[in-house]
Amino acid sequence: MEKATAVTGRTSADSSRDIPEATVARLPIYLRALTTLSEQGTGTCSSEELAVAAGVNSAKLRKDLSYLGSYGTRGVGYDVEYLRYQIAREIGVTQDWPVVIVGIGNLGQALANYSGFRSRGFRVVALLDADPARRDEVVAGVEVQAFDNLEQIVGDHGVAIGVIATPAVAAQDVADRMVACGITSILNFAPIVLSVPDQVDVRKVDLSIELQILAYHEQRKAATA
Amino acid sequence: MEKATAVTGRTSADSSRDIPEATVARLPIYLRALTTLSEQGTGTCSSEELAVAAGVNSAKLRKDLSYLGSYGTRGVGYDVEYLRYQIAREIGVTQDWPVVIVGIGNLGQALANYSGFRSRGFRVVALLDADPARRDEVVAGVEVQAFDNLEQIVGDHGVAIGVIATPAVAAQDVADRMVACGITSILNFAPIVLSVPDQVDVRKVDLSIELQILAYHEQRKAATA
Repeated sequence: MEKATAVTGRTSADSSRDIPEATVARLPIYLRALTTLSEQGTGTCSSEELAVAAGVNSAKLRKDLSYLGSYGTRGVGYDVEYLRYQIAREIGVTQDWPVVIVGIGNLGQALANYSGFRSRGFRVVALLDADPARRDEVVAGVEVQAFDNLEQIVGDHGVAIGVIATPAVAAQDVADRMVACGITSILNFAPIVLSVPDQVDVRKVDLSIELQILAYHEQRKAATA
Repeated sequence: MEKATAVTGRTSADSSRDIPEATVARLPIYLRALTTLSEQGTGTCSSEELAVAAGVNSAKLRKDLSYLGSYGTRGVGYDVEYLRYQIAREIGVTQDWPVVIVGIGNLGQALANYSGFRSRGFRVVALLDADPARRDEVVAGVEVQAFDNLEQIVGDHGVAIGVIATPAVAAQDVADRMVACGITSILNFAPIVLSVPDQVDVRKVDLSIELQILAYHEQRKAATA
């Protein structure tokens, strides 16, 4: 353990310091920007370049990266591959996260097919749906199974993260079943606020929120035009 | 004008003050929480109740609402319906926003069917796809048309907001065509950074970001367990 720490640097798991929640929320954005830079063949980048690629200001970026102990090299900047690794390790996406998706409508299918999950370490181990008519369908190479298989799948694969893509009316029941069988993180696409115990993390995705933010700016543009 | 202002209060369009971007991003969350409270038959709520429903702390909530000139009534709290109206007006979702969606895969279909768009004033006026095989399909009551109809549809309906749900390789071309025909706000679901002129707003939706935030916390839970 001592040795591993010396080689790989401080791991997030060792660390007792907390990264501010707003910084945590930006780490995936930096990771994506670094992945793009890497794919373009960029070896090193300045904080300004990375800030532009990520769409944040460079002072905020430097502050965020300082929580990871990443300061770059004066006159050279950041090593793209290494910083990418540091951030991925900090987030935890250097490990494999088995994920189960419940609700295989258009959204569930889009999520199952979403390449951005696989490339970040999220592996969809099961697609579950309450509708018997969907049984045995194969989506993105994964067979659709009965929702009643949830407990067994979570146990077999050690699933910690569940994705709810059901209609709103079904979502709380799905969440209750997930929590009961040991899932401790839920990504909720259903348009309702889930009630879960304190130790369970829920993140809501509301696809209309970004549209509303655009509308706000659009309205102001129209007012000044 | 003077009179309208007196009746409805200051409108966002009149106002010269800027609301901080972080507050703007939370307004849709308050709106959703208020809609839920309203549907539950709640007439008034304290800032604490609303903060819990929205998942933010109440000091931040009060500060955010103060930008809208909303302070509630001492000992009574906020009038749910009125505050909901104030926020909806501030965001701009009391008006009708014609929207065009390009790319009718699973994600595009999920978006076309998403009830959360319609209920917030976003009206999908056209679904466009480059694939001739998709032509004349009807999704959520809207006919799929050729992408080449973009310019005419944007002109006919006064579309200001475009949604890109195409694969990454097609997204920049779609954005260029949108900008050329007058679209000034783009919601981008494709996993690439779009290059657009300064006066065009782009919001990216990366469906994996919330999963990565869950992974971060999940990793920390595992480390402390």
